[in-house]
Formats: sequence, structure tokens, C-alpha cells
Amino acid sequence: MLSAIIIGGSGYTGAELLRLLASHPDVEICAVTSRQYAGTKVTTVYPSLSGYYDSLTYCDPDEISPESIPNVKAGVVFSALPHGVSQASVLPFIEAGVKVIDLSADFRLNNVEVYEKWYCGHTASEYLSKAVYGLPELYRESIKGATLVANPGCFPTGAILALAPIMNCLYDVSKPVVIDSKSGVTGAGRKAAVETSFVELNEGFKAYKVGSHRHTPEISQELSALAGSEVSVTFTPHLLPVSRGILTTAYVWLKEPVTASTIHTLYKDTYTSEPFVRLLEYGLFPDIADVRGSNYCDIGIYYDENDHKLIIVSVIDNLVKGASGAAVQNMNLLFGLDETTALTTPPISI
Amino acid sequence: MLSAIIIGGSGYTGAELLRLLASHPDVEICAVTSRQYAGTKVTTVYPSLSGYYDSLTYCDPDEISPESIPNVKAGVVFSALPHGVSQASVLPFIEAGVKVIDLSADFRLNNVEVYEKWYCGHTASEYLSKAVYGLPELYRESIKGATLVANPGCFPTGAILALAPIMNCLYDVSKPVVIDSKSGVTGAGRKAAVETSFVELNEGFKAYKVGSHRHTPEISQELSALAGSEVSVTFTPHLLPVSRGILTTAYVWLKEPVTASTIHTLYKDTYTSEPFVRLLEYGLFPDIADVRGSNYCDIGIYYDENDHKLIIVSVIDNLVKGASGAAVQNMNLLFGLDETTALTTPPISI
Amino acid sequence: MLSAIIIGGSGYTGAELLRLLASHPDVEICAVTSRQYAGTKVTTVYPSLSGYYDSLTYCDPDEISPESIPNVKAGVVFSALPHGVSQASVLPFIEAGVKVIDLSADFRLNNVEVYEKWYCGHTASEYLSKAVYGLPELYRESIKGATLVANPGCFPTGAILALAPIMNCLYDVSKPVVIDSKSGVTGAGRKAAVETSFVELNEGFKAYKVGSHRHTPEISQELSALAGSEVSVTFTPHLLPVSRGILTTAYVWLKEPVTASTIHTLYKDTYTSEPFVRLLEYGLFPDIADVRGSNYCDIGIYYDENDHKLIIVSVIDNLVKGASGAAVQNMNLLFGLDETTALTTPPISI
Amino acid sequence: MLSAIIIGGSGYTGAELLRLLASHPDVEICAVTSRQYAGTKVTTVYPSLSGYYDSLTYCDPDEISPESIPNVKAGVVFSALPHGVSQASVLPFIEAGVKVIDLSADFRLNNVEVYEKWYCGHTASEYLSKAVYGLPELYRESIKGATLVANPGCFPTGAILALAPIMNCLYDVSKPVVIDSKSGVTGAGRKAAVETSFVELNEGFKAYKVGSHRHTPEISQELSALAGSEVSVTFTPHLLPVSRGILTTAYVWLKEPVTASTIHTLYKDTYTSEPFVRLLEYGLFPDIADVRGSNYCDIGIYYDENDHKLIIVSVIDNLVKGASGAAVQNMNLLFGLDETTALTTPPISI
Repeated sequence: MLSAIIIGGSGYTGAELLRLLASHPDVEICAVTSRQYAGTKVTTVYPSLSGYYDSLTYCDPDEISPESIPNVKAGVVFSALPHGVSQASVLPFIEAGVKVIDLSADFRLNNVEVYEKWYCGHTASEYLSKAVYGLPELYRESIKGATLVANPGCFPTGAILALAPIMNCLYDVSKPVVIDSKSGVTGAGRKAAVETSFVELNEGFKAYKVGSHRHTPEISQELSALAGSEVSVTFTPHLLPVSRGILTTAYVWLKEPVTASTIHTLYKDTYTSEPFVRLLEYGLFPDIADVRGSNYCDIGIYYDENDHKLIIVSVIDNLVKGASGAAVQNMNLLFGLDETTALTTPPISI
Repeated sequence: MLSAIIIGGSGYTGAELLRLLASHPDVEICAVTSRQYAGTKVTTVYPSLSGYYDSLTYCDPDEISPESIPNVKAGVVFSALPHGVSQASVLPFIEAGVKVIDLSADFRLNNVEVYEKWYCGHTASEYLSKAVYGLPELYRESIKGATLVANPGCFPTGAILALAPIMNCLYDVSKPVVIDSKSGVTGAGRKAAVETSFVELNEGFKAYKVGSHRHTPEISQELSALAGSEVSVTFTPHLLPVSRGILTTAYVWLKEPVTASTIHTLYKDTYTSEPFVRLLEYGLFPDIADVRGSNYCDIGIYYDENDHKLIIVSVIDNLVKGASGAAVQNMNLLFGLDETTALTTPPISI
Repeated sequence: MLSAIIIGGSGYTGAELLRLLASHPDVEICAVTSRQYAGTKVTTVYPSLSGYYDSLTYCDPDEISPESIPNVKAGVVFSALPHGVSQASVLPFIEAGVKVIDLSADFRLNNVEVYEKWYCGHTASEYLSKAVYGLPELYRESIKGATLVANPGCFPTGAILALAPIMNCLYDVSKPVVIDSKSGVTGAGRKAAVETSFVELNEGFKAYKVGSHRHTPEISQELSALAGSEVSVTFTPHLLPVSRGILTTAYVWLKEPVTASTIHTLYKDTYTSEPFVRLLEYGLFPDIADVRGSNYCDIGIYYDENDHKLIIVSVIDNLVKGASGAAVQNMNLLFGLDETTALTTPPISI
Repeated sequence: MLSAIIIGGSGYTGAELLRLLASHPDVEICAVTSRQYAGTKVTTVYPSLSGYYDSLTYCDPDEISPESIPNVKAGVVFSALPHGVSQASVLPFIEAGVKVIDLSADFRLNNVEVYEKWYCGHTASEYLSKAVYGLPELYRESIKGATLVANPGCFPTGAILALAPIMNCLYDVSKPVVIDSKSGVTGAGRKAAVETSFVELNEGFKAYKVGSHRHTPEISQELSALAGSEVSVTFTPHLLPVSRGILTTAYVWLKEPVTASTIHTLYKDTYTSEPFVRLLEYGLFPDIADVRGSNYCDIGIYYDENDHKLIIVSVIDNLVKGASGAAVQNMNLLFGLDETTALTTPPISI
């Protein structure tokens, strides 16, 4: 039985880890921290989990350290803390040789200058080069041998899976890559704010952080790595009045004439053996509802042969494939478990 | 032109006053206060009002007094402050002889002991007996001559209009009065709180303050006055995942056998000349969507002849007939204007 | 491996059976019928099930009979057809000795006159007395030995579980039982109708079938059986603008003074060993979101010692505990499986 | 008093015309047709309009002709019929010299071949060249003198207003124009269909008609006219789970280096005297909620000086500025009335 520690476990990604791990036969929760809710039962904050974690109480993060956990090296640490805070909190565990899956942005960017430009100062930048970007569809083998996994951002997951198949071959580097994304509100986290109140968002829809969202360099980094050259992306996030889900509409131009069938076959070949990517028939497009609560990324494509334009639409559940589900998938890989364990129940589409 | 001062104008009822008064040909906003947003333009907080109040800026409530407003006695003060706070803020205006419409609960209850039991201490209780309960369907003539109008609570408005026609005649005092109400989220006001965040409420529904909601004594007071004897009500509010609207389902038993037709005629007679009560045909029931944005109260009834049981369903827009629309209606009455001025555009039902 | 046939499998309860059974280790779907979608792949109608039932195609109901299914007696038939249609469709299977779980209302009422008054003619009424009402919390042992299980209605499930603990002891038969229920839209089924279109229901809320909903006699039957005498219920359903969930607020008066603590203990004792009923701490009330996607019924109570009034609030997911989850629970009981199999993943509360 | 006939008045755009015209002091509804609801009172189909049109009944379209309406030439005909059907229905009125505002697509495209490629056969194509495209911001003077106004499509309205200021000067014709739009469900009209049912759309989001939406040639036609050369647009619509609103995110590249300030000034100059276009401060972006129920188009822009990329976000209420509000605005222009009559109440943002 694998012991899991969740640091920062009172937010939505923490709660989602608890929801998913409740069905994992090989994992038990050893501790879950929350500064705000220290001393409060998990089921008081999340009554939906009653019957699953009745004896689990949030503990103060200061009480948790590698030394305080028996046999900590055989366990796993998930950090669901915000960026900036996470790096310092996981450092002791990394240094103690514990496997860490960090759901924040702190170890996703290879380049500390880029990180510090978009986020804040980094106090553990020596681990940037050791962290593996936790997108199994790109880095499965590296993840298996990693000790620090940087769990991808929610928008980057949807965007990279949409574009990966064509970046290293057909993509025309002289044309723009436009990524227009729409996210449910859980992406904003669980905090008291007028901006995320029901009344402010219900029946509304807007773009936000136009030209300045922090996931931009993460998307660029990974697309550039795939393309073999610098890719400048135009990324615009929008806020959907739904709880879960990200839909990404990506526009890209190809450098040579191909056929729709060729492109669809390329996508099919890329993802045919991936357990969590479902390619739709050509001409069909996915709905965020069809992946709700699940670890799937569903993808549909359209190719315009007249101007070599490819439109790709991908959907994920931002809390699952975009966060906690990917973290469980990475944990399964890290510990040699079946990659799909605890991630096999169908989506709740209605 | 009537000058209006809105105290506490950054919340939803304040914004709704501004929305409605923008169409009022006889009113101009002289000042709108907000401690939190003092110095901020109204249209910055509410961009929807751009073009209507471009030169209006929230001012600090401490800067506003009867002395600071020229010709204040010819104007009107709306208080959209919370209960407890409102009483002290409107007192100087009341004492200066300015007509005040208080949207808080501070002057709704006749009995200071009841107020202090359910709310908090009262420092202006000498005005309780002078305030007129601002439900025109019950107290129109008194309102016309009032100087202090206690604007009714949102739940009480829906419940009292549902039950008023039968309280003084057919109602069986030995049986219970069950009032099961369901409100949209704007009823909770505009404040940063996890409890009212989009994610916590979306696709959810719950009862709250069961057996203890502060609108209970207000409903009892008015139904008792109508019945001529003490009426004990069972009132349960629920929170709907919509922005606007209150639907009240009231269950009452009658003391003598009547017919459905008799009851329907009684309701029709009661409300036929009311500009804002729309009685549906017998057997039809209202939807909160059909009064959205308007000052209407729509009512449908069902009578079970077997056990003399009457079920009444009423709907209002809690921000309009349940708050700011009623306040404008009261203002119109106070100043001898057409009662429906600025309240005549149809609901936005879709 | 148990073979399951789903008759009428293209609606929401059919799709929910498929979703739940995808996680059942002991069940395989042998056939799923749909007159409308005969010949269409299940995953075409429900893309969310891609990867689970890729080779399953809806077949014409006329092609399915006890004779056409090898070893049919060892299997189970679920009928998710509408009332009236279901009775004739399941009859051949019943007569062939196949265990049948009927999700329609056709076998829920003991009395054929009552059925025919509220529904339509009954052509298999000889089986009414043989059918077991499939609420395990009341009839677990009978279900284990049944061949025909009448799966309870969604509203009755929430109402009966709310009231069962006090019906045979504390309930004051001289006072009313008021059941005010609010249901999500999936309860209306999957059909093309303006009345259930997004625009008509979004941001709306209304009562419907006031005084005439068909679940009324079913609730009365079961509460009367518990009370040992005829119980007349006042039942009003409402339509919530959410997809899933039923919240029931029940009002009942008790015949002798008790304490809140006594009542809470009675509820706790009644349900302590039930795997799918979660009683909340006294003073807390459930939210439909906290049972979403799960087979739980969460219950909260409030007792007013002044007038011996008990208010009970229960929530279920109408598609799970109110339909397909209960059906799976019943199937587990019928075949000696662990009652909770395929029903153990936590709710998706956010 | 101007007499208005609404042909096809039972759908959402017809109902919205009725809602808006209820506040118009110079217009009275002379007839409203509906094949489906002929003989039914308007307030039966739309209870929200009770009190406004109590004596108005839908009449059969076959009973309405230029001959049957007294003094028809002094009136106005609105057609809210679907494309293809509208052209034949309005033809007799056009030929009789009645001013017609057609809300369908039938007279929007100048070129009959383009119309017939994207829509269907055209039996009144001789009027294509006489129709004026009813976007006052582009064609105000022509509208004033028109007899046939082709009311713009909802997506084109948002897209063209977003892009108009830069098409004839700064736009780089060699680069793509990407228009990513998101619409509320009222855009799909009022019809019984599983695809637009509450359950299918609630908490969902998807792209549709990717690469093939009929509004594409309309957008191209108008942007090309502005640019003075053929503009090929990439247009992708998406379906938002809200009732009203369209948000358009447009991506365009400029042909020479400018500054953000220059661009913002250009937009401000273009729209400063437009009564229904509200340009936000640079760096702010609009929300569909802030125009709900109103005739406004709110616009925000972002300019990336590094790669000369301009992102424009526009929002409209698809039923108002995107349909019936624009029709009323056009009617006001046609008849020399104040252009803003009946369109002046503020949006209902919450």
C-alpha cells in the first residue's frame, strides 16, 4: 500500500485528488494539510466525501515534514499549493528523496528566467532541470524514472494534446498558432472573491488576461520542443459559466498541401494506444460534458484544404486530466502501477 | 425633478435602484455612497451602466449628511445598507424631515423586542411605530402619507401576496401555514464568500436557516395583522442556482368547504386593480422567469376540495418587487407620481 | 459473469445503467434496445461512453425475446421503458422465469384500480402482487428472493427515506404531511420538447402538476404501509434548472412531545447500517450537489419543540438512487452480490 | 402611430420584438402571425407579456396580406421567419410598397450565387440589390431611405463591429482573420429538439458547424467591402450554456507597426457618436452579461506590438443587437424616429 501526502489539500484540486484516490486500491492517504482548515475534518469541508475519509482531518502544514512521516521515502507527495508557495514546501521532500508530484507551475518551465518573468522568484531552481513535465503522452518513459514530476497546467494540457501530432512535421512556422481556450470556473480555485461569485459569473462569459496569461510560456515551451524551433503562440483564455471543463480551439496552418484524411490518420496513429485520448471521427467535435469527471482528452479536427488550415478542438476536465487525474496517472507511472488505476469510471456526461 | 440619495449603493439592491431609476423621468441621482468603493466610478463597478451614470462616483458615507445636500428636504433617501447599520445611517435624514425608504429590515417589525430577538440592538426604535410597511397592496394609502417607509423583505413580499386574500376570511387558524420558498442567489447580496461562489452553488440546491430565518417574524406579523389573530408560520427558505427570482409555495387549510372557483374569484377580486399582481388562470402556475427584471408578482392557485387545502404559488424578482422595484413603487406613491413610473418595461423571460 | 439486457436503453436512465455497469466486474451487457436508435452505436448517441461499449449497438426491441437470448434465465432484464409500455415488454421475460427489474411505474402500486386511475390500463396486473417494491432500506430481504422488482420512483425514494423512521411511531395522523420536492431536469426524460428546452428552463423555476403528480399514490402507499393506516400526502413537485438531483422538504407533525436529540437518534438508528443513507449532524442540511453521480441519500432534520413539528430534508441523485443506481443495487441483491458493487465511487460535488 | 406586422412571431426573435415594442410610444402591433399557434393568445405562449398584449392573438399567416391590412403602406412589416421561407412571405409586401425589415438571411447577401450555395434557392433575388444591409454603424444613411432592410445576422453583427475600424487601413491582407465566436442558446431558435434540450446543453460547451457556418459569407462580404478587397475569414461558432449573448474574439494582424494607443484612438473615433457601441478602456474586456437585454455592443481591444497582432473582443445580446433590437433601431431610422426609441433601458447585468 502506497502512502500519499497531500499538501494544500482543501482546494478543488486537493479535493479532486481525494475523490479519485478513494477508488485507488493501492493508495492510502497518510496526511492532508491545510493552513486554513487545520483541525477540521475533511468531510466537514467536503460533505460529499462522507463515508470515505471520516477519520481524516486537515493538519497544519508546519507539522508535516519528511522526518515526521514514517517510511516517507516509500510514499508520494502531491502538492496542490499555489505556485510560488509550492516550491519551498516540496523542497524538503525532494531533498529527502521522496517522489513528488507538484500540481503548481513551479517546476514546469525549464528556464528560470522565463519562470521569474511570468511568475515570481524561484528558490529551488536547481530542480527545474531535474523535474519531468508530467504529460504522459509526451514523456511517459521519463516520468517512470522521475523523482519530481511537474504536473502540467490545465490550459497547456488541452492545447498541447491538440497540437502535438503536427508540430514536428506539417506545421508552418511562418504562420500564427492561435489558441482560443474556454475554461470552467473551478480553474480559478476555491477562494472567496466577488469576481468568482455565482452572481458575477452566472449567465456571463468573458475573456481574461488577454495577452498575458501565465500558461502562455508553458504552451510555447512544449510546442517549441516538439517543433524543434521557437513557436510563438497567441493564447486567449475565456471563463465559461460551468464548473468543469476546458475546450480549446486551436488554429494552425500547414506548410504543404495534405488531405483531411492524412491529417486524421496522423492523429489516429499518434493517439491510438493512449488510454486517455479519444479521437473523434472526422467532422465530429467534442463537448466538455462528455469528459466530465474523467481523465479523457477528446479531440476533433477539421482541415480546410483550400488554405491548408487545420482547426483542432480538444476538451478535458480541467480538474482531472487538467490537474488531479493527470497527477494520479503520473503517480501510477512513477510506481509501476497500471497507468489507468482509479481513472477508469466513465464520464458523467449528463 | 426629484433628487435621490442612495446610501449603500454598491450592492445588488443599490445597483438595481440605479438600473430602474435610469428610466425614471422625474428622478435624478444626487449621491450614491459606498464605503468600499468611495472614489470609484459607478460604471467601473457596474460596466453595464456605462452611458447612464458616467459622471457618478461613489462617495464616502461619512461625507453625506442632511446638511451637505442642498434642498435635501425635497428629495428622497434610499438606504440599501444591511440591517443594523441602516438604522443609524438614516436617522439624521429622518430627523431632518427627509423622506426615507429603508430597504433593510430595520423598520419593518412593529415590536422592538421581536426585532432585537431576531436581529440586533435597535438605536432608533422610536421610529418603528412611525414607519409604514411598504407593501402597496396592503398599505397604499398609508405609504402616500409616510415619511419613513420600511421596504418589505423579499421572502415576505412573495409570501404575503400569496396569502393575503384568504387570511381574514377562509383561513383555518387551527391548521399550519407552511411556506416553502426558493430564492435566487442575488438575495444573498454581493460579498466575497466561498459559500456564494459559483462553484459551490452551481448545479446545487439546498435548504438553509431551517427554522431560523429572520424573515419569519416579518411574515408572521403581516399575516397576523390580516388574520386578526396570531398566525404561526412554518417558513423554510432554499437557495436556487439562479441569479434572480423567488418562488413561494404556500400550503394552507381553509375552515369551511368552498369551491376552487370561489377561491379564484376571491383572488381575482383582491388583485384586479393592482398594477403589479398578475393572477394566472386557475390551474396554471407561474415561473420565476416570467417576472425577471420586472416588478410583477405572478400568482397561481390550486384548491383541493377534499381536504379544504389551498396551495398558492407566487413568484417575484427578488431584486425588483422583492427590493428595489418596490422601493421605486413606494417612492412614486410618496411623491404623488404615477405608481408605475419606471416600472413598465416587460420582464425578460428568456 | 451476469448477462444484462436493457430494454429501452437510449434514454437517460438507460444511459445511466450503462455508465454504472461499466464499472461492475460481474456484469456484461448482452443487449440494449431502442426503437428510435436501432442500428445505431451506443457511443454515437452517448459519446461519453466511447471506449466502454464500442461494439454495442442498439437493437430493435422486437428482435429481443426470451427465446433469442442464450441462457436467458441466468441473466437479468432491466426495463427503462415508460410506464404503460413497460408492462407488456417485460411480460415475456417474467413468464420465462427471468429476473426483471422494471424502472417504470408499472409494478409499483399494489392496487390495480389505483394504478389505472393515475396511469392507464394494466395488462399484466396479475404480477402486481408478486412484484417487490425495490427500496432496499424497506424491503431488502424480499428483494433478495424476488423475480420481479418494481424500482421506486425518484420522488418517492427521496420522500419515503425522509419520512420512514417516524411513520410508525411518532407521526401524528391527524395533521398533514406536506412534501415539497424539487427535481432536476433529467427527471423529465430525454425527448424533444419545447417545454424541456434549455432556453425555457434556464434561470427558471416552477411548480408543476400541482395536486396531480403520479408519484402521489406511490408515496401514499408506502407511507401508509409504514404507518399502518391510510396516510394522505400533499405532494408538490417543482422543476429545478439543474441536470441532476432531487431535494425533498417534508413537513410532519408529531403526536407527542419529544426532543430533537431523540428524533436524531431515531434517524441514526434507522439508517446506521444502510450503505447508501448518510444522516447529517443535527442542524446541518444536505445539498443535491453532494450526492451527484452517486447512490447516496443524504438527510438532515430540524425539530421544533414548540409545536412538535419535524422538517426533514433529503437529497438524492434522481438518476442514481432515484433510478439506475437503485436498479443496480437491486440487481446486486437479487444475485447475491455485494450490495454496493459498482456504486462505490464518491459523488462529484463540484 | 405606426402599425407593425410581425410575420413569424412565435419564435424568440418575434417575442423579443414584442418585448421591445411594448415600450415604443409610436408603434402599435397590428398583427402577429404564427402557423403553429394560430388562434392562440400571445400571452398564452409568452406569459411574461401578460398585461401588455392581452388582446393579441396569433393569426394564420395565410390570412395576412397587403390587401387585408388597412392603410398597410403606412406601416412596417417585420419578418422573423426562417431563411428560405421569409423571401416568399415578404415579397407581396415589398411589391405593395410596404417597408419591410427581414430578420432572416434572405436579403443579406448581394450575390445570389453565394446565397444559393450556402442556403437554398432564391425566388426573389431581384430584390437582393435593393435591400440595404441593416447595420446602422455602416449604412445609416442608406437605411433611412430604404424600403427593404436585411437585418444582419447575430454573429456577423458582433464580428463586423469588432473589425470594422481597421479593415480599410491597418489590416494586413496577407495574414489570416480568425473569428472565434461563442453564442447563447437562443441563437438556435425555439423548436423542440433533443440537441437543444436543457440536459444536453447544461454544463456543456462545444464548437459546431466548424468550417461550414452560414454566417461565414455574410461576414466575408461586409469585411471585404470595408477592406476594398476579398477577405477570407476563418469563423468558428461555439455554443455557450447561457440563454443570451454572443462573445466574439477576433484575431487580426496589422500591416505596419502602430501603438496600442493609436489603435484605441481609432476605435474611439470610429464609435464615439454611435449610440449603441461602447468602447471599453484599453486593457478591459467585455462580458456578455453587461449587455444582456440591451442593444449595446461592448468592445475591448489588446494590441501586441511585437508581432503587430490585434485581438478584439466584442459582446452583444444576440436577441437584441443581434436581431430584434437592431430591427427596432432600423425601424426608427426608416421612419425618421429617434434612433434609440424603445432601446434605452439599461442592460440587466445580474
